[in-house]
Amino acid sequence: MSEHSPVTAIPEDTCWQMLREGEFGRLAFHLADEVHLVPINYAVDERRRIVFRTAEGSKLLGLTMNADVAFEIDDFGEEEATSVVLRGRARQLEGSEEDALEQLPLRAWIDTAKFNTIAIEVDEVTGRHFELTRPWRHMRPPPDA
Amino acid sequence: MSEHSPVTAIPEDTCWQMLREGEFGRLAFHLADEVHLVPINYAVDERRRIVFRTAEGSKLLGLTMNADVAFEIDDFGEEEATSVVLRGRARQLEGSEEDALEQLPLRAWIDTAKFNTIAIEVDEVTGRHFELTRPWRHMRPPPDA
Repeated sequence: MSEHSPVTAIPEDTCWQMLREGEFGRLAFHLADEVHLVPINYAVDERRRIVFRTAEGSKLLGLTMNADVAFEIDDFGEEEATSVVLRGRARQLEGSEEDALEQLPLRAWIDTAKFNTIAIEVDEVTGRHFELTRPWRHMRPPPDA
Repeated sequence: MSEHSPVTAIPEDTCWQMLREGEFGRLAFHLADEVHLVPINYAVDERRRIVFRTAEGSKLLGLTMNADVAFEIDDFGEEEATSVVLRGRARQLEGSEEDALEQLPLRAWIDTAKFNTIAIEVDEVTGRHFELTRPWRHMRPPPDA
């Protein structure tokens, strides 16, 4: 293995580029005293907010009670992985604010009936690149053995 | 689009099979009043616990203060996506409990120095399968246009 650090920071501009190129992430939010986690389809708007539509009541209930959320996208392969995590505050968009998102590629990814539009105002973005080491691989027989 | 529901539940046994086949997920946890989210390399032990090693102090601090966590794995393609979410309680393993995990494929994925071993005792597992619709695709020019 190399001598340099296996974990390196991804610059914030690169994080935003990765966020704009993605469409699928995971949202962590408070629901009463619990932390919950759901996959979401998202887009990034002109104001660098994460926007998504949801039909889930529990999700909205959580966001109404406590706006504090975290959101993550990642990509991983055999040799390396990247992860971008942001923290921010979520709130429901209505009326003209919601209408302003019409041009985003944010049509319902899932074909269900009712949706609310949520925006996450981002407070901090952190990206990390990981070099992966999997030393247990040599302890296992190959798949065809 | 089809008439049946685009979101279907994945049976719990299938969820566990997917969890055993995976090695990469995301952990949501409390840190003081905030919810945090990190990617982790994990394994499933014989007692159906999610186990992982971490070098991150903030992660452990969060788990020490509040054991309530959520964990997610997913897989998504052009036409469909699956997501398995579990909720449970995390705690640090030490001594013989930690030694008992020696045979799991849980060597440090990332080649850093110090690790603590954490186990999530799982309270509930939920899996969902999504049929994806992306109606905005036809609104965009093709990539080479």
